[in-house]
Amino acid sequence: MLIVGEKINTSRPKVKEAVANRDTKFIRSLAREQQESGANMIDVNCGTFFDEEPRLLSWLVQEIQDELEGLPLCIDSPNPKAIEAALKVHHGTPLVNSISGERERYNKILPLIQEYKSEVVLLCMDDEHGISHDFQTRFKIASRLIDDLIKDGISAEKIYVDPLVQPISTDSKNGVATLETIKRIKETYPGVRTICGISNISFGLPERRLLNQVFVAASMTVGLDAVILDPNDRGVMSLIITAKAILNQDPFCSSYLQAFRKGLLGGLK
Amino acid sequence: MLIVGEKINTSRPKVKEAVANRDTKFIRSLAREQQESGANMIDVNCGTFFDEEPRLLSWLVQEIQDELEGLPLCIDSPNPKAIEAALKVHHGTPLVNSISGERERYNKILPLIQEYKSEVVLLCMDDEHGISHDFQTRFKIASRLIDDLIKDGISAEKIYVDPLVQPISTDSKNGVATLETIKRIKETYPGVRTICGISNISFGLPERRLLNQVFVAASMTVGLDAVILDPNDRGVMSLIITAKAILNQDPFCSSYLQAFRKGLLGGLK
Repeated sequence: MLIVGEKINTSRPKVKEAVANRDTKFIRSLAREQQESGANMIDVNCGTFFDEEPRLLSWLVQEIQDELEGLPLCIDSPNPKAIEAALKVHHGTPLVNSISGERERYNKILPLIQEYKSEVVLLCMDDEHGISHDFQTRFKIASRLIDDLIKDGISAEKIYVDPLVQPISTDSKNGVATLETIKRIKETYPGVRTICGISNISFGLPERRLLNQVFVAASMTVGLDAVILDPNDRGVMSLIITAKAILNQDPFCSSYLQAFRKGLLGGLK
Repeated sequence: MLIVGEKINTSRPKVKEAVANRDTKFIRSLAREQQESGANMIDVNCGTFFDEEPRLLSWLVQEIQDELEGLPLCIDSPNPKAIEAALKVHHGTPLVNSISGERERYNKILPLIQEYKSEVVLLCMDDEHGISHDFQTRFKIASRLIDDLIKDGISAEKIYVDPLVQPISTDSKNGVATLETIKRIKETYPGVRTICGISNISFGLPERRLLNQVFVAASMTVGLDAVILDPNDRGVMSLIITAKAILNQDPFCSSYLQAFRKGLLGGLK
């Protein structure tokens, strides 16, 4: 299970301020804190800076990789210029977040993935359907895009499909739609991996963390490979450690027992 | 999701004492308390009384059904005489827990199921294999027994398969073996339902409730229909309510919202 730490995002006021002031100490400690809490990858997003985004994203990548000895980063932007600036300075294999079936976006981001041999997050949406509520359609879009990417020279192992989590408060079927999409992708394309953010599932409902946690357990059960979240959230991290033990992803329950000894299984919520 | 309350079991010292003393007040309040916490069915087990079991099980059935206006009960015994005594006084459709592929047990319990038109829990074990650690074997046993029961006139809708949960502490694959068995049964026999107890999964490990809860979420994700548990355990009941919302078993999240308003979503552990 790949844990992508989501906290370095300038939509959060403190991060925005830190990036504006080039507060390297703040950024580095936020990155390290996430890694120490269990993140295997750090997401970087400074999309709120518009024109300055390429320069700032490149700065973030350098600072964080320097702090974390080259830990791979998730380059989170829809802006090809910002992505390219980040890829130029990134060491190792980054994950570009994201490409989609929107033709313009696909055509601009594909050459970057090819040139820099990066991994890529594939959003299940396109120009014709937007984000479909129907999981068959969503699977069909993903399926076509996976085939396109493979044809364009990106190996299955480099693709992370994001089924796009929609809130169950707007349609009770949205949770199952995501779970079915993950399941079908894993059955149909064994090499391809799946990724999602989790908090959208609970939008508009009370006790959101409870919903988010149960949703992660359900997603892992159908084969989710990676998740974008706040690794300092002890509840959800407890849940992931526990689910790995249940799902035979933790031989001899050794990570589970280690987490227990460290006092990290403090309860789900 | 059928919730079977497990507390009326004479392996618990207080219940044993209450049954020995025919303490109807204690038994009735334990039954009502479970129903009020969300149980749709109450399990009754007084197997520790051996020769007295038939008489006592029959007494329990009468007292509890009188208290709960005929709520169906789960008649939990391997003893055909005790089962028959209970079935004779039970109103409505009971669930007999259980039959298995052990030939003697099968042959003695089948006629009771047929005569009293009860539902039945089918354990995935037989004389040849005992409880197999291998899920393919366990599925094969279940499959053969389902076919036998249907041939013997029991309709698919009356069968609840119990995959037999084994601890992950003895073999890391035990969780997945159960989940795969549930999944295969549901795919292969759409009318047949699945049931399990949960606490065995966590035997021998710390923070057992955490493991039990995540296991319930995973089992519901692959199609579990019924669970035997302590309905006064607020953590696991919170989890089930939440999982139903995620899994489109709660239109408009209305049970979830109602539970929230009643203060029942207090956290998972």
